[in-house]
Amino acid sequence: MNNTVKTRGYAAFDESGVIKPWEFERRAVGDDDILIEIKAASICHSDIHQEKGHWGKQQYPQVPGHEIAGVVTQVGKNVIKFKIGDRAGVGCMVNGCTTCEEEQYEPDTKFTYGYPEKKEPTGITQGGYSTHIVVRDHYAVHLPENISFEKLAPLLCAGITTYSPIIKADIKKGDKVAIAGIGGLGHMAVKLAVSKGTEVYAFTTTADKVEDIKKMGAKEVIVVDDTKKLYQYAGQMDYMICTIPYQFDVASYASVVKPYGYFTMVGMPVGFQITLNNLMLAASRVNFNASLIGGMKETQEMVDYCAKNNILPEIQIIKASEITQAWKNVEEKKARYRYVIDTATI
Amino acid sequence: MNNTVKTRGYAAFDESGVIKPWEFERRAVGDDDILIEIKAASICHSDIHQEKGHWGKQQYPQVPGHEIAGVVTQVGKNVIKFKIGDRAGVGCMVNGCTTCEEEQYEPDTKFTYGYPEKKEPTGITQGGYSTHIVVRDHYAVHLPENISFEKLAPLLCAGITTYSPIIKADIKKGDKVAIAGIGGLGHMAVKLAVSKGTEVYAFTTTADKVEDIKKMGAKEVIVVDDTKKLYQYAGQMDYMICTIPYQFDVASYASVVKPYGYFTMVGMPVGFQITLNNLMLAASRVNFNASLIGGMKETQEMVDYCAKNNILPEIQIIKASEITQAWKNVEEKKARYRYVIDTATI
Repeated sequence: MNNTVKTRGYAAFDESGVIKPWEFERRAVGDDDILIEIKAASICHSDIHQEKGHWGKQQYPQVPGHEIAGVVTQVGKNVIKFKIGDRAGVGCMVNGCTTCEEEQYEPDTKFTYGYPEKKEPTGITQGGYSTHIVVRDHYAVHLPENISFEKLAPLLCAGITTYSPIIKADIKKGDKVAIAGIGGLGHMAVKLAVSKGTEVYAFTTTADKVEDIKKMGAKEVIVVDDTKKLYQYAGQMDYMICTIPYQFDVASYASVVKPYGYFTMVGMPVGFQITLNNLMLAASRVNFNASLIGGMKETQEMVDYCAKNNILPEIQIIKASEITQAWKNVEEKKARYRYVIDTATI
Repeated sequence: MNNTVKTRGYAAFDESGVIKPWEFERRAVGDDDILIEIKAASICHSDIHQEKGHWGKQQYPQVPGHEIAGVVTQVGKNVIKFKIGDRAGVGCMVNGCTTCEEEQYEPDTKFTYGYPEKKEPTGITQGGYSTHIVVRDHYAVHLPENISFEKLAPLLCAGITTYSPIIKADIKKGDKVAIAGIGGLGHMAVKLAVSKGTEVYAFTTTADKVEDIKKMGAKEVIVVDDTKKLYQYAGQMDYMICTIPYQFDVASYASVVKPYGYFTMVGMPVGFQITLNNLMLAASRVNFNASLIGGMKETQEMVDYCAKNNILPEIQIIKASEITQAWKNVEEKKARYRYVIDTATI
């Protein structure tokens, strides 16, 4: 049990948003664990929020990354779910309950990076911007062979975070589904909602994304350069999913949904705090809820669904040395639509 | 049409919260209007918020009051709904659409006080802390004969604001219903939910209300002197209604509701702004919504239901000269549970 795993990664050393090379050790592969050689890891806005301390103080060095695709290179003696050579994906969770359906909401769930974990030599979990990762078998999913690791990695957070509420929302073919915030999560939401036969209305603040989003299948793309643009759609949508990871005018966005319809927030803003106008929310009669990633069973379903229906992210592959610049681009809304790190460059 | 109605009232003259006598004129009774001699008007926390400018700048002098009970003393020539001598109640609305079901959400609805109204000699609507009021017939409801005006007045806002979401929530006999904030609205919510055969869990911050609330029929009364008290009820309630009229820890309160259940906010805080923890809301999987009073048809239903089932407010009758002190008491959570102004003292 003392065979810790020497790993190279790219880590944050402070709240600056600068990501630099770091060598560290992961815990030895336990009886229920698998070791994955990471082939691709993608960049989620959450990585930036967390490492910059937007969600609370962090322990550094900390390796971010919770969209991970690779190959199993070692399995613990109890593991039957995976064998060496299998492709495997890891998302936002690496350990915890193995019997419940919605692991993400269980109190003993360990998240993929920055989470206190005594078993790890660094005292916290360390994420996917790295060469290897050790996870409990239950918290990895099988990945298909015929799709590149780079295209698969973003499914593990951007995919499941949008798939889960879309599946749970009772939407039918022909329904009008609004997606707000068309970045890494939003563009997957557009593709997923289109695949369900709905009419997708995409709300973005970035005018030069319009043509891209139409190609993804959206019926209409609305550039929200003025809140009044939202009011033109007041009460028209059957459902709305919002990925905006900053404070915004929640009630105005929600007002595009039909009375007694649902608005799901999946973006996680600074401090996790959302402020909304309660009077406007009352007037819209919209139900506001929030959703966090998805359970492991649902994550496997999502991967299988996306593979079968060819619902894959638009990506830009970068070297590890380009992560700091890529983060700046994400913050400046320049990503199109997911940066994926080629981990061979770490 | 120039027979304006000389009226005595008690008005705010600035944001100080001091209420003083004032004589003013109301518009003449139009063809579709009724004139009501006000017998009782009660004090809602909203009166204080609005007159203190918590919801935006106000025009003064302004007579507050939107829980009004009285007797019809004049009717316009088109009016068939009321005749002279009828008892009538007026709530938060005095004019607007006469065909839709949820008038409170229609853009042309005129609210009872402080609302721009060219036809009024003062340029704004003036509320119920006064001797008379002129309203469109559609916006008054019939009041029963066998109940005092003082007991009826609070139904017009506190009653309907809690009745409407309780009726719309799909609650069944035996369901666990949580009520947070046991003041004027909250104590009516307790009585209404009890009358529907539900198990009521009342959450209050005021320890000396516990015995009262149990007498109202609550199964359990929880004194929330620490947020941890809420976590003991995590995920247990079928539904929650919250009347707290200030900023509070929304997501912690909502977390007492079962996953995929509903939390309805009826309290309207300063600036109408609610801030909540989006991550905690996601973890609770609770649907958050807000509700504003109720429609006119529903208001009549509510009055009839309360009269039939003897669901009436706990009141303290005061003189008009005591309003300023009563407002202070409301803000200090000393009201038990609704102050009603005897308008004969105006």
